[in-house]
Amino acid sequence: MSSLDAALGETQALMEQALDTYLPPAAGPEARLHDAMRYAALGGGKRLRAFMALQSGALFGVDRTALLRAASAIECLHAYSLVHDDLPCMDDDDLRRGKPTLHREYDEATAILAGDALQALAFQLLSAVELHADPFVRAELVHRFALAVGHAGMVGGQMIDIDSEGREVGIDTITRLQRLKTGALIVFSCEAGAILGRAAPSQRQALVGYGQDLGLAFQIADDLLDVEGDPEAMGKAAAKDAVLGKASFVAVMGAERARAQAEMLAAQAVAHLDGFDARADLLRALAGLVVSRRA
Amino acid sequence: MSSLDAALGETQALMEQALDTYLPPAAGPEARLHDAMRYAALGGGKRLRAFMALQSGALFGVDRTALLRAASAIECLHAYSLVHDDLPCMDDDDLRRGKPTLHREYDEATAILAGDALQALAFQLLSAVELHADPFVRAELVHRFALAVGHAGMVGGQMIDIDSEGREVGIDTITRLQRLKTGALIVFSCEAGAILGRAAPSQRQALVGYGQDLGLAFQIADDLLDVEGDPEAMGKAAAKDAVLGKASFVAVMGAERARAQAEMLAAQAVAHLDGFDARADLLRALAGLVVSRRA
Repeated sequence: MSSLDAALGETQALMEQALDTYLPPAAGPEARLHDAMRYAALGGGKRLRAFMALQSGALFGVDRTALLRAASAIECLHAYSLVHDDLPCMDDDDLRRGKPTLHREYDEATAILAGDALQALAFQLLSAVELHADPFVRAELVHRFALAVGHAGMVGGQMIDIDSEGREVGIDTITRLQRLKTGALIVFSCEAGAILGRAAPSQRQALVGYGQDLGLAFQIADDLLDVEGDPEAMGKAAAKDAVLGKASFVAVMGAERARAQAEMLAAQAVAHLDGFDARADLLRALAGLVVSRRA
Repeated sequence: MSSLDAALGETQALMEQALDTYLPPAAGPEARLHDAMRYAALGGGKRLRAFMALQSGALFGVDRTALLRAASAIECLHAYSLVHDDLPCMDDDDLRRGKPTLHREYDEATAILAGDALQALAFQLLSAVELHADPFVRAELVHRFALAVGHAGMVGGQMIDIDSEGREVGIDTITRLQRLKTGALIVFSCEAGAILGRAAPSQRQALVGYGQDLGLAFQIADDLLDVEGDPEAMGKAAAKDAVLGKASFVAVMGAERARAQAEMLAAQAVAHLDGFDARADLLRALAGLVVSRRA
């Protein structure tokens, strides 16, 4: 097992523990909501965004507990986005991480509410005094996060995605779609460690650049997986995008060019880290993994 | 026209302007999302929560622009909650403020996304450096807000509401439901001015107490309106709760006792303001309006 695989496995275990602590225990007449939030956020996921936050923070010696809290916020946000994306009126998915999607296991109303509450919990975690003694850091983190996950970020991208179903869209629109839908939160995940570590502007910018290129590479690889991947290994349906007539890099560029593009972007992402020492090696290795993954 | 009516009218006009500034203009391939966010947040509403924030802030001489920004965050959050509550899998409402609900005017996916983006926008507005020079105030505001609108607040209440449909529930559960579902955001609206004004703890606590009693009085009055109100004046369907078999104060206590309870709570709310001078008169008058309103 490579040191990257080991570190990713450790992150998954740490995040399961951290999220278990931060998610509300099922209690009271609203216990169904708590249960559903836990169902959505616990028990799986590659935790790549958490890994990015933990690794970027480690570059600046940020306290591990603070990083796990910030990473939990990011994973709660990500979990909410999956729950809402899976809804019948969106992608209408039945399986996620090998389990029934939340609205299949519970119901649509509970899925919408669990997503809504996970978004609020993410902001609660980031703004808590326990995250960082300096309130400027907390407010800055919340503000960047809000920008990354709202209309100018993730939700904006999801709107383009839904809206472009069955329509011919150009490479410009697909790039914008992905930069917003998955890119913005990945960039935030890489930047969060720099904000928490009060890194120099040039170092923070380097991590933003890394996140931008990595995010796009990740998405192209995801599009390739949708076409070529093994549904069993992925724990979700494949060839879904093509069936839905979704805009994708592969549809517009073809698989071969898309793969070359992803590899180029991964190399570019690594180049952004030139100013960092060996402590950035896991982030460097991650860029390679992202474009070679099979699930 | 009473001075309260005049002040409420002025607040409505100010909020329409402020929200128009803070909501994204419709642009780019995600313009449909922006349009939907504007549809949900602009063009009506009593703006009672904004009024509470503006009035509580005025007690401590808080800058008007900062208050309008915070009030806009609150109204965006409130608008999102209405959009999601109106969805077919929740209350399945066709009319809101005399217009088709968002999912009727657009579609379900757009309604879910517009709500999601309005929640993020609310956090974006509260965490922006323009809100307050002191980052501690910004972080504190965000944190209280996140608690008020998440699983331990608004969304938790909505879960109880949905879950109790068609079931017998006691007064304890109804009180918890309403304290979370509508009470928490009303309390925050009253507290926000005190946080922005760095009020003394006792003053902040007085406004929290006012908000708690007012919020419950407001909800009981709302339940009464659902039974007795004029659908045309309200711009939404009446007797909806009874049809859905929803838990309500009126169902459990009967209309007469419920009205007496609302009036008692309104008086209690006013008593919390005893430590404030005439500048709190509009908040005092609001308590009277809340229990006497007909729409």
